[in-house]
Amino acid sequence: MAGWEENVRKVTPYVPGEQPKKENIIKLNTNENPYGPSPRVQAALLNVEHLRKYPDPAASLLVDKIAAYHGVDSAQVFVGVGSDDVLAMSFLAFFNGNKEILFPDITYSFYDVWAELLRIPYRKVPLDSDFRLRKEDYFSTCGGIIFPNPNAPTGIPVEPDFIEDIVKRHPEIVVIIDEAYIDFGGKTVLPLVEAYENLLVVRTFSKSRSMAGLRIGYAIGSRKLIKYLNDVKYSFNSYTLNQPSILLGAASIEDEEYFRKTIAKIVQTREWFKEALEQFGFQVLPSVSNFLFVTHPNYPAEDIFEAAKKAGIYFRHFHNDRIEEYLRITIGTDVEMQAVVDFLKNYMK
Amino acid sequence: MAGWEENVRKVTPYVPGEQPKKENIIKLNTNENPYGPSPRVQAALLNVEHLRKYPDPAASLLVDKIAAYHGVDSAQVFVGVGSDDVLAMSFLAFFNGNKEILFPDITYSFYDVWAELLRIPYRKVPLDSDFRLRKEDYFSTCGGIIFPNPNAPTGIPVEPDFIEDIVKRHPEIVVIIDEAYIDFGGKTVLPLVEAYENLLVVRTFSKSRSMAGLRIGYAIGSRKLIKYLNDVKYSFNSYTLNQPSILLGAASIEDEEYFRKTIAKIVQTREWFKEALEQFGFQVLPSVSNFLFVTHPNYPAEDIFEAAKKAGIYFRHFHNDRIEEYLRITIGTDVEMQAVVDFLKNYMK
Repeated sequence: MAGWEENVRKVTPYVPGEQPKKENIIKLNTNENPYGPSPRVQAALLNVEHLRKYPDPAASLLVDKIAAYHGVDSAQVFVGVGSDDVLAMSFLAFFNGNKEILFPDITYSFYDVWAELLRIPYRKVPLDSDFRLRKEDYFSTCGGIIFPNPNAPTGIPVEPDFIEDIVKRHPEIVVIIDEAYIDFGGKTVLPLVEAYENLLVVRTFSKSRSMAGLRIGYAIGSRKLIKYLNDVKYSFNSYTLNQPSILLGAASIEDEEYFRKTIAKIVQTREWFKEALEQFGFQVLPSVSNFLFVTHPNYPAEDIFEAAKKAGIYFRHFHNDRIEEYLRITIGTDVEMQAVVDFLKNYMK
Repeated sequence: MAGWEENVRKVTPYVPGEQPKKENIIKLNTNENPYGPSPRVQAALLNVEHLRKYPDPAASLLVDKIAAYHGVDSAQVFVGVGSDDVLAMSFLAFFNGNKEILFPDITYSFYDVWAELLRIPYRKVPLDSDFRLRKEDYFSTCGGIIFPNPNAPTGIPVEPDFIEDIVKRHPEIVVIIDEAYIDFGGKTVLPLVEAYENLLVVRTFSKSRSMAGLRIGYAIGSRKLIKYLNDVKYSFNSYTLNQPSILLGAASIEDEEYFRKTIAKIVQTREWFKEALEQFGFQVLPSVSNFLFVTHPNYPAEDIFEAAKKAGIYFRHFHNDRIEEYLRITIGTDVEMQAVVDFLKNYMK
């Protein structure tokens, strides 16, 4: 190892789901939305201009729309390059004590990567045997708490009361609820941010708004929390959202009808597809997200994963002891999910 | 202060140049390029599609173009959300020892902000009385070195030999050369990255490529250096460049003729404008960038700054003892710079 390498921060990065460059595959491995964003979003590309100028560092056009949409003040909204950027900045800003932060053992697998990168002590709290969070596990002294609601990759939600019970016991730390998948059926804790100034709710445009390609995420919390978060962001990169993101993000918020319609479609597809899987003998966790987390008593998950891939269908499989036998399947269109059913029919015959 | 605030990372953020929302101003305060990107860049907006899908996390289309353009391997290129993102990731990845990193006292004022944010010990090395770097000042033991070439906000360059003398004395650290403004007349150290695996060269699309609104920056170095940098990036945010950035960035590289033509125009404008300022009695530092750093023996910089602003002309003024009497003026179009001349004629009469 050369001398200079001794000063390098060495980390094991997060591995995102594969983004195959092949055409004509059924891609159900990264929880993308099959319907694409509102036509207004695509149309707004024509309004992108003045590329020579820096974007508004505060991204006010987008921030104001998000604030109005959720009925909060613009000073309560933070935006970033996808919810990953929002979460990374939040880890940097808020998980800055010496005590361990807490998150589930089965959850978004980026949390421990950020903790390792930023040298934040952490402890993974095991989900119960039904893959559910137990709120009592989060009552102990700690340096911060984060989990998604609904959780990923299980898709299982908790009630707002559950979260409030945790937050109200912890005025000494920041609690982050990652609501990436909330629009597909969970109950948001956004109304609680007025009562608890240490509660941060994180959202993304990548799933329900079908804009993964633009990288837009946001957080809502108290003015104080958002001020601290912006201070860290402005100490990292003054201008994070580029002009297309600001403009197209705002256009998405303007088309509520399309947003509702496509979400309803995904929920409808999820429900029939869940029943179909159960008829094949799969156990399907009770998901309120745009994916299902499934296991089969007779067929190893990795075998199904590989066979499906060979057939041009991409699922997600995690190498983690407790969920080695599970697959995460994104909900696509009815046609795509029917193709999965046809594949399984053939595979299991 | 509430309990949770004790765990918060408190920082004093970088303050970017004002981005006034007013129309009809002459904006010479953030070193934007007056000409806009190649028409091919704007046209490429029409090719942005599949917004529902995540962008390629490796941004290969853009990375490959940049690599081919500079005659290096794609594994030697790192991309980020503007050079600020590239630099922030580099600080995180490479300035990870216990020794002080070194940079000039008068330089890009984000360096100390990143060092403070990431708790990297640092020492500012004073420029000499002519605002020049002295290479001997960078020969001592340290945890890393960074400076821009040409330096900002002075615009004064150093020769590649100057940098090589520093790098070859320091196999134990990473040396970062921030070439944000190199295309306007400086001599790049890119050829040195083959010989020195600890030399990182950082570039941006925001100045010479006139694409500040898209936020694209990159770094070139040894495969090893880029691998470490990517590991940190993938531990922070899997997908940083969005689809428009990848596509439009690639389109920019394809139009070399436009690129050369607009740079030549800016250099030409800089030269006559410099002479004009000298005729007004300004002292103008020998800049090879797209800005001039100027002072006048009889008129306080802040007074000129305020009067110009009132007249709708925005310069940049830094509150820093040694350069309190200087203004940084971006080179705009001939028409814009003539308006500055007219303003000064009136102001000084």
